[in-house]
Amino acid sequence: MTGEFELIAKLRERLGVAAGDPGSGSNASRVALGSGDDAAVTVPGGATATSVDLLIEGVHFRRATAPLHAVGHKALAAALSDLAAMGAAPGEAYVQLGLPEDVDEAGSLELADGIAAVASEHGVEVIGGDLSRAPTLILAITVVGHAGSAADLVRRGGARVGDVVCVTGELGGAAAGLALIERAGPEAAVDPAQADALRRRQLEPQPRLEAGQALAATGATAMIDLSDGLGADAGHVAAASGVGLEIALARVPVQAGVAEVAAALETDAIELAASGGEDYELLATLPPERLELAGEAVAAAGLALTEIGRAVTGAGVVMRDPDGGTRKPSGFDQLRDHRPSS
Amino acid sequence: MTGEFELIAKLRERLGVAAGDPGSGSNASRVALGSGDDAAVTVPGGATATSVDLLIEGVHFRRATAPLHAVGHKALAAALSDLAAMGAAPGEAYVQLGLPEDVDEAGSLELADGIAAVASEHGVEVIGGDLSRAPTLILAITVVGHAGSAADLVRRGGARVGDVVCVTGELGGAAAGLALIERAGPEAAVDPAQADALRRRQLEPQPRLEAGQALAATGATAMIDLSDGLGADAGHVAAASGVGLEIALARVPVQAGVAEVAAALETDAIELAASGGEDYELLATLPPERLELAGEAVAAAGLALTEIGRAVTGAGVVMRDPDGGTRKPSGFDQLRDHRPSS
Repeated sequence: MTGEFELIAKLRERLGVAAGDPGSGSNASRVALGSGDDAAVTVPGGATATSVDLLIEGVHFRRATAPLHAVGHKALAAALSDLAAMGAAPGEAYVQLGLPEDVDEAGSLELADGIAAVASEHGVEVIGGDLSRAPTLILAITVVGHAGSAADLVRRGGARVGDVVCVTGELGGAAAGLALIERAGPEAAVDPAQADALRRRQLEPQPRLEAGQALAATGATAMIDLSDGLGADAGHVAAASGVGLEIALARVPVQAGVAEVAAALETDAIELAASGGEDYELLATLPPERLELAGEAVAAAGLALTEIGRAVTGAGVVMRDPDGGTRKPSGFDQLRDHRPSS
Repeated sequence: MTGEFELIAKLRERLGVAAGDPGSGSNASRVALGSGDDAAVTVPGGATATSVDLLIEGVHFRRATAPLHAVGHKALAAALSDLAAMGAAPGEAYVQLGLPEDVDEAGSLELADGIAAVASEHGVEVIGGDLSRAPTLILAITVVGHAGSAADLVRRGGARVGDVVCVTGELGGAAAGLALIERAGPEAAVDPAQADALRRRQLEPQPRLEAGQALAATGATAMIDLSDGLGADAGHVAAASGVGLEIALARVPVQAGVAEVAAALETDAIELAASGGEDYELLATLPPERLELAGEAVAAAGLALTEIGRAVTGAGVVMRDPDGGTRKPSGFDQLRDHRPSS
C-alpha cells in the first residue's frame, strides 16, 4: 500500500493543507506555518479556545452504517460544535488519523473529503496532523477558535437565577436518524424526505458556529452544545453555574418526523429530543431582556431560538411534562453506556 | 467500573488540571480557563507552535514491555520534542485517552502519572482532554508552545550551503534499549547500569526543550527532532532546505553500551545511532561562526552539541563511513514498517 509520506501528501492535498508556506491561508489567516514541519505556527492575536475530540470505530460510529465521508464530516463538526458553544470564531484544526488495514487509500481520501467539506464551509484551516496504522479507525481532532479577549468567550458557569433557557434549532433529529439507520422498523412510519433529513442530522451534523457567536455577542450568560442530551447537558450548566434549571418539555422544538419515529420505537418525541443527544444545537442562558435581540441575531444565522425554561434557585435540572409530571434527565456516559447496537 | 465523569475527575486531579478556575496556573500562565468547559481558553501573546501526536498500542508500544507510567511519559515527551525542534517554550497540553476494558482505574491513573511527571518537569499545563472506551489503548496528545514571534521559531527549511550540521546529546540509545527490552540475547553483553540507562532512553525519553530554545536563540537555521532516525530526519531538513547534507558517521556521538548491544545484534553502533530513531535529540544546522556560542548555550542546558557534518550544494543525505564508503539513510514509515516485534 501507499507509504506514510505519500499518503500524507495526498491527504494534505484533500484537506487543503498548505505545506509550510507562510501566509498561505486566507487574508485573515493567523497561520504563519502550515503542515509539514515539526509544528504548525500561528499568531493568534486575542484569546484562543481549544477543544479536542476522540472518535473511535465501534464506540462512536460503525462503518457498516456510517459512510467514511460522513465519519470525517461528523468528527470535525462535533469538534467545532464545542467552539460554537464558547462563541468562538473557528480558526485552525489538527487531524490525527489511525487507519486500519481495510481502509484503503480511496477510503482514507473519502474520509479526508468529509473533513475538508466541513472545514471549507466554516473557513477552518487544517494545518497539522498525524497518521498511523491502527487496529480500528481512529480520529482525534483538535480545533482552535478565536475571540478578541477571554472575556468574550461564554462559559458554562455564568447562568443566573431568572435567566431564560433557550435552544437553537430543533432537537431529536439525531436520535431519530440513528434509529432509522440502525433498525429496519421505523422507516415505514416516516415521510421519505423527512427520513432523509433525520439520517443526515445523525450522520452529518452542523456546528452552530454563527449562532454561537451571535449568542455570545448578544449577552448569553452560559452556553453548551447538545452532544450528550438536553437533560445531561443542561445539568452541566446547572452544576457549573450553581443554579437549578427548569425546562418545560412542551416547549422543546422537535424536528419533523421525530414523533413518527418515536411512535414506531414505542416512545415519544420528547424522549428522543430530551435524551437523545448528538443534535449539536446550542443551549444558552440569557437575561430575559436580551432574548428578543438574541433571537434576531440567531435568526440572522438561519436558526430559530426557542425559550424552553428558566434558571431558578436550587440545583440540578427539572424537566416538566405538560401534565405536570417530571422526567429524569438522562444522558450519556462514554465509558458506561455508549455502544453501537451491533 | 468507574463512569466517565468520575474517572475524568480523578485523571484531572493527577494531571494537575485546574477545572475551570481562571488564573489557576503559574504566574506566567496564559491559561484563562482550564479543563471542564466546552473548550480551554488561553491568551497566547506572541506566536504559538502546535503539534499533535497519536500513539496506539500494538503499533507504537506494547504493554507487555512498556509499563503504563512509561507509556504516558513517552507520549507527552515525544509530543514536546516537536516543540523543542521549533525552539518553542512549552506551554499547554491536551490529552485524549482511549481506554480498553483491561486498563482499570489504577492503570489509567498510572498512565496519567507518567504524563504528569513530564508535564511537571517542563512546566506544561494539561488543560483539556477527552476520554473514551476503546478496543486498545490510544493516546492522542496536542501540545502548544510559545515564542515572542513567528520569526523566533526554527523551521526545517532554513539550512544554507556551508552550515554545520550538529546533534545534541548521544544517539543509538533508544534503539539499543528497545533491543534489550524486546529480546533476551543482548543483555549479557552490556554493563547493567548502562543497560538500565538504555532501557530508560527507550521508555522514558527526554524532550530537549531547553537545548532547542538555546539553539533557536543562538542562530540555528534549521532544526528537527530525531524521532524517525538520523538519516530519515536529516533527509527532511535537506528536502525542505533545498540543500544536501553530508554526515561523517565517525563523528556521530553514541551512547555508552550501544556498541555492545549492536555487536550482540550482529550490527554496529553506528547503524543503531543512524537508523534507530526515537532518541529525541535535536539535529540543527548553524552558520559555522555560531557553533561555539551555540555549543555553550546547549551545554548550559546540560547537553553536548556535536558537529557531525555540513550542508552542501545538492540534494539528499550522504552518510559517510570512516573508510569512505556511504550508507543509505534508512528511516521509518509508520504505515509500512513500524510494528512491534510480537
